[in-house]
Amino acid sequence: MTSPHSTAAPSTCTVITGIGELVTCDGTGPEGLGLRRDAAVVVEGDHIAWVGSAADAPPADRQVDLGGSAVLPGFVDSHSHLVFAGDRSAEFAARMAGTPYDGGGIGVSVAATRAATDDELRTLLRRRVDEMRAQGTTTVEVKSGYGLTVDDEARALRLAAEVTHETTFLGAHVVPPEYSGGPGARGDRAAYLDLVTGPMLEAAAPHARWVDVFCEPHSAHAFTGDEARAVLLAGRAAGLGLRVHANQLGHGPGVQLAVELGAASVDHCTYLSPADVDALVGAAGTTVATLLPGVEFSTRSPYPDARALLDAGCSIALATDCNPGTCYSSSMPFVIALAVREMGLTPGEAVYAATAGSALSLRRSDVGRVVVGARADLAVLDAPSHLHLSYRAGVPIARALDLSEA
Amino acid sequence: MTSPHSTAAPSTCTVITGIGELVTCDGTGPEGLGLRRDAAVVVEGDHIAWVGSAADAPPADRQVDLGGSAVLPGFVDSHSHLVFAGDRSAEFAARMAGTPYDGGGIGVSVAATRAATDDELRTLLRRRVDEMRAQGTTTVEVKSGYGLTVDDEARALRLAAEVTHETTFLGAHVVPPEYSGGPGARGDRAAYLDLVTGPMLEAAAPHARWVDVFCEPHSAHAFTGDEARAVLLAGRAAGLGLRVHANQLGHGPGVQLAVELGAASVDHCTYLSPADVDALVGAAGTTVATLLPGVEFSTRSPYPDARALLDAGCSIALATDCNPGTCYSSSMPFVIALAVREMGLTPGEAVYAATAGSALSLRRSDVGRVVVGARADLAVLDAPSHLHLSYRAGVPIARALDLSEA
Ligand SMILES: [Zn+2]
Ligand SMILES: [Zn+2]
Repeated sequence: MTSPHSTAAPSTCTVITGIGELVTCDGTGPEGLGLRRDAAVVVEGDHIAWVGSAADAPPADRQVDLGGSAVLPGFVDSHSHLVFAGDRSAEFAARMAGTPYDGGGIGVSVAATRAATDDELRTLLRRRVDEMRAQGTTTVEVKSGYGLTVDDEARALRLAAEVTHETTFLGAHVVPPEYSGGPGARGDRAAYLDLVTGPMLEAAAPHARWVDVFCEPHSAHAFTGDEARAVLLAGRAAGLGLRVHANQLGHGPGVQLAVELGAASVDHCTYLSPADVDALVGAAGTTVATLLPGVEFSTRSPYPDARALLDAGCSIALATDCNPGTCYSSSMPFVIALAVREMGLTPGEAVYAATAGSALSLRRSDVGRVVVGARADLAVLDAPSHLHLSYRAGVPIARALDLSEA
Repeated sequence: MTSPHSTAAPSTCTVITGIGELVTCDGTGPEGLGLRRDAAVVVEGDHIAWVGSAADAPPADRQVDLGGSAVLPGFVDSHSHLVFAGDRSAEFAARMAGTPYDGGGIGVSVAATRAATDDELRTLLRRRVDEMRAQGTTTVEVKSGYGLTVDDEARALRLAAEVTHETTFLGAHVVPPEYSGGPGARGDRAAYLDLVTGPMLEAAAPHARWVDVFCEPHSAHAFTGDEARAVLLAGRAAGLGLRVHANQLGHGPGVQLAVELGAASVDHCTYLSPADVDALVGAAGTTVATLLPGVEFSTRSPYPDARALLDAGCSIALATDCNPGTCYSSSMPFVIALAVREMGLTPGEAVYAATAGSALSLRRSDVGRVVVGARADLAVLDAPSHLHLSYRAGVPIARALDLSEA
């Protein structure tokens, strides 16, 4: 991952050859994939120094031959919740047997996460990041949201910052058990919002790049449009960029709020009105609709209409939402396969959305594309083309290219 | 895999401990899973010598501690087509863009397979078997069906027999291009059937355990009920067991034909009439309905109703149908996740169908269960329970346990 604490690669100059298909995602050509045959890539240190035809490749200190494999930008997983403890597989099994999802199970993860030590959480987090990398993901956004106290949220973000730059404060994930239910519940919600937008934000901000909120009037556990606005404005005032969980369980104000406030990403977008789509079209290039079809798979819900969003002119991204409640999949290839099967994207459009598209949702131009100057974050496939990511659904054909081991 | 040519493991006695959950699939307890906690397994040579509580485990030459991982029978993938050359990913992409599947693309694989050398096919086949093993599959059935000449079918089965006992003659996959279309096509079909039931069967039978036929009146490339009957009767007369591809693209006579002839397995079962279900119920324990949801995923088709079949009392199995046209997935965990999401099985029912259920469809009692005397073909999960196979959709958490490396 793009860890602030990883040791920099030595400034060796490496030429990568034997690339069966290079998917640059540079925005050119069909689907923006910028496909190249007979290409080579030169990596200097952590960055891409040259991209061109293998026949023209400049000299390098060493050569890595990939034997005809397809190469693409490492996946950018722009939405995940990796700092948690506990096991909710039984809740999943119950949901598959008919129990509906309403966000309430988050409390189970909150209790287990609070009870875990720093080292326990760190071990779990790093194992998940490694698992993602083994499947081709080289940039991951990690949210807090299972601490829901000042100290526990700050801790989650401090640990997340050990593995990624893309840390997101999600104190407004749900109203925690001690503030919800029982007599005076309404007042308790207000008290929790004051905490989130005050002391919790203050403790979290030094470790976070983004603020996020679960805006979902259909869940008693989540937040209304007005509450979400308060959270986002406080986060912005603290210097954080904006992301929103919106329109997952039903129609609501989240998408239009995200566009109005210039959020970088509005995530889920399962239930959209024509006005929501219009808002996203108007915000193309600024506010990205991040689709999380692993959630619909794992909750047996209808899928968002990615085809319609793309045809309308919206910017879209794909991410896993890897989390213990609604989608414990860390697999971007699985998400790509779902986007093709269930949301009408072509295999190429899905790959673009999982790389350059999700990089845009993080306002990053140094990842998600194989271009000169970008980070040398590459994924390699045990396959000759990017089509195989959806053609070979469920098969672990992608991995992050590790040049230090090559 | 259960290869006749693999070198036998040394008769070391190994006790496996640290099993977080042992899924024996011995038919006892909820879903027949025979779950055990705090269990140990003793392996002698290739076989399971003892199963019991870790506290009671007998002494052994060595101990392998799995650190809390779940252990289950290695997956039995009872339906695959692994002997082929060529790349049909572009056909997949076209189908996702709207081109319907009718079996015609098989000709592309036939041409490429005929053109490949033995060594090329052997390399491709072994790579696919290794890929399956890396995902937890320890028994695989492999069909011919991309040769469709006497020599090419015999060759495919000879190569398949190098990697598995479960080899299936599928000369009646489709009517090959040189026998179909054009003037006199009907007569040509009859000539091809004569070939399949005569010289081709004779050449194939020494390398095959089973005979199979693609019975599908809805495809001009496949075979009618009468044609399928002729193929199956000829195969039976040659000493082969019976399997049938049936009712994949629409209603048809295949399921009832399979039951009537006592086939071990009838595969696909996507479109079933009440009479088909009744026939399968009557044949429970003898003729297994093998469901292949990866095909429905990869062809964007409706899924068979596994829930209804199980509730009615049918024997069901799950397999990948790994093949270049309709499902190039080799992942049994993916199939299990689909069975839960799309076909209404519980996670445990899906695991049972992918192990003991598919072993029954191969009439094998030595695989698919962790019981004394069975083969020591085990799968290990990077997870504490079998629920994670569907909970963690798309994530490669399963692998075959390799005791020689342990
Ligand atoms: Zn989320
Ligand atoms: Zn098949």
